[in-house]
Amino acid sequence: MSYFQNFMKANQAYVDLHGTQHLSLKPKTKVAIVTCMDSRLHVAQALGLTLGDAHILRNAGGRVTDDMIRSLVISQQQMGTREIVLLHHTDCGAQTFTNESFARHIHQEMGVDVTGQDFLPFTDIEESVREDMELLRKSPLIPDDVEINGAYYDVDTGRIIAVDD
Amino acid sequence: MSYFQNFMKANQAYVDLHGTQHLSLKPKTKVAIVTCMDSRLHVAQALGLTLGDAHILRNAGGRVTDDMIRSLVISQQQMGTREIVLLHHTDCGAQTFTNESFARHIHQEMGVDVTGQDFLPFTDIEESVREDMELLRKSPLIPDDVEINGAYYDVDTGRIIAVDD
Repeated sequence: MSYFQNFMKANQAYVDLHGTQHLSLKPKTKVAIVTCMDSRLHVAQALGLTLGDAHILRNAGGRVTDDMIRSLVISQQQMGTREIVLLHHTDCGAQTFTNESFARHIHQEMGVDVTGQDFLPFTDIEESVREDMELLRKSPLIPDDVEINGAYYDVDTGRIIAVDD
Repeated sequence: MSYFQNFMKANQAYVDLHGTQHLSLKPKTKVAIVTCMDSRLHVAQALGLTLGDAHILRNAGGRVTDDMIRSLVISQQQMGTREIVLLHHTDCGAQTFTNESFARHIHQEMGVDVTGQDFLPFTDIEESVREDMELLRKSPLIPDDVEINGAYYDVDTGRIIAVDD
């Protein structure tokens, strides 16, 4: 029994609430939010977003990777966003391993050698936010006049705390 | 004036609703949802998720990239997810360009040469879902017994439509 069927049922109720409306594919606030996949962070609710407001990009850790840059370039150049909010969070899964321990685990579980691959773990949350803000600022594909802010989310309280550069 | 300040204000109200609660970093449903950054899709609401239910991974197009695989491996091997729901959507930004036109645009706007880089545009939505399901199934880093389902979201009605393999 998969959860997919449950989600499809829950979606039927959502469709009634949603009604038919056509919103622009260009986000109203011109903001792209870069954050983690964590299940305890519901981005729209935590930031007060309504439908159509902002792009939401999420990977393990909310890290700035090549794919994140690819997505941001599309967000900015095709859909007009001009601001980035980078949001990490407390008690992150990316704080639970090192590349070395993870490679050992994967080799044991699946027999696949991922030695040398960076799974982007981190230890200090403010440091990881600053590191990723720096990557955004240094990218030749992110224009210099794009506003960039960093913060982290406390999964126990729901509170967002700004991180200065 | 940046929207970041608005989000911080909206978050203050959210904190009151949230209260203090510690949920496990392991998602309750053991599902990871892979989808697009689009602003008209609020994943938790559309699928009936509550806090702590599922990982949510989002990039431009909801495409299966190396970074998506990195994130899924962490989701599965560190936090115990065993099911993937791949969700694309209608009227996607990834349907608005070709790699060639996009490279020309970026060269004009920023003077950066991205010729040869794949920004992962697509034309047919069911085809893109099937293509990405296939990439997940073929990955040596995704165990064969992980349940994988594909679907797409209609941004005008909020409805999710399953895509058969």
